[in-house]
Amino acid sequence: MLNLLRPTDPSWVEAARADLPGLLSDHAHCEIKAAQSALSLVARFGAEHPEIIDPLSALAREETAHFREVQEHLEDRGGNLGFPRVDEYVRKLREAAHRERGHADPFLDRLLISALIEARSCERFKLLAEGIDDPRLEPFYAGLMVAEARHYRLFSELGERIFGAAVSRPRLARLAELEAEIADQLPLGPTVHG
Amino acid sequence: MLNLLRPTDPSWVEAARADLPGLLSDHAHCEIKAAQSALSLVARFGAEHPEIIDPLSALAREETAHFREVQEHLEDRGGNLGFPRVDEYVRKLREAAHRERGHADPFLDRLLISALIEARSCERFKLLAEGIDDPRLEPFYAGLMVAEARHYRLFSELGERIFGAAVSRPRLARLAELEAEIADQLPLGPTVHG
Repeated sequence: MLNLLRPTDPSWVEAARADLPGLLSDHAHCEIKAAQSALSLVARFGAEHPEIIDPLSALAREETAHFREVQEHLEDRGGNLGFPRVDEYVRKLREAAHRERGHADPFLDRLLISALIEARSCERFKLLAEGIDDPRLEPFYAGLMVAEARHYRLFSELGERIFGAAVSRPRLARLAELEAEIADQLPLGPTVHG
Repeated sequence: MLNLLRPTDPSWVEAARADLPGLLSDHAHCEIKAAQSALSLVARFGAEHPEIIDPLSALAREETAHFREVQEHLEDRGGNLGFPRVDEYVRKLREAAHRERGHADPFLDRLLISALIEARSCERFKLLAEGIDDPRLEPFYAGLMVAEARHYRLFSELGERIFGAAVSRPRLARLAELEAEIADQLPLGPTVHG
């Protein structure tokens, strides 16, 4: 699914279901980080690659809107936004990519890592949509799943358009291997990425 | 005007008019930074002060929309977004506030410094709306001027609501003194804040 080489252990849904406020708090912060990341890509790379400006600033607005929706579900359950934590999955993925970057462009890696994060979120939101056992959250996650798949395509297509398929596709394949190892090793908790 | 103690030298408009792409590029990055700042306030202080979550995430969306509008004006003139630069005005304002913070709360200072930045932007956009001598930019800046005044009120009202008027107002008055000194000393260039 979307270039992911290893599926999430289905028991992850149990961990998520056991602490919905924890999951929603983590998810809310993920949306803020995604918006911040899109804005920082525009600010840093928009001058040299103007084709990212429109889609990624639109993405930042969409992620901010998703944040508010997640936050509303959290409030409805009496949960609190909580404090941001370091996302070990994202941190390890960036580190692993950096470690073996070689001649790969750091901007290409930013795009492709974003693509893979969106892909993993999509896969996990699908699990939630099918098994979170909550009449309001299931359709909510079904909708977000579709959005994350679209974001995956946006990032991977930007990579191909800017760097060419011959460069971008093999790099995405390699990053997907690293992603699979990392996702597999992280504990299964009430967090979007583990 | 909006708590500003010293007006901008009217000759600033000449510097801005002489390099409209430079002004628009700087302005575009200001909007991105404003969106990022609003998101970081939500992420960092939203758990303890949930009343900021809705207005500041809405603000982040609005600033991102403004960024795209500025970027369109820039493109229409064949300008390039350019790279982000350190905003000396904002840097000096934060430093000065930090230096003499004493018992003032860092979160209160974040809110009130944001209020003053919005106020100064409002004042300068008014100058542009009245004197940039461009049939498309004058109404554009007139609209943004109104938005910045509203953002000034949002931040100063959040400060009063969370920390009380007896604490927030004197601190805003002191920060406004620091702001006036800093704005007065910076060179007059084609940038939003000098």
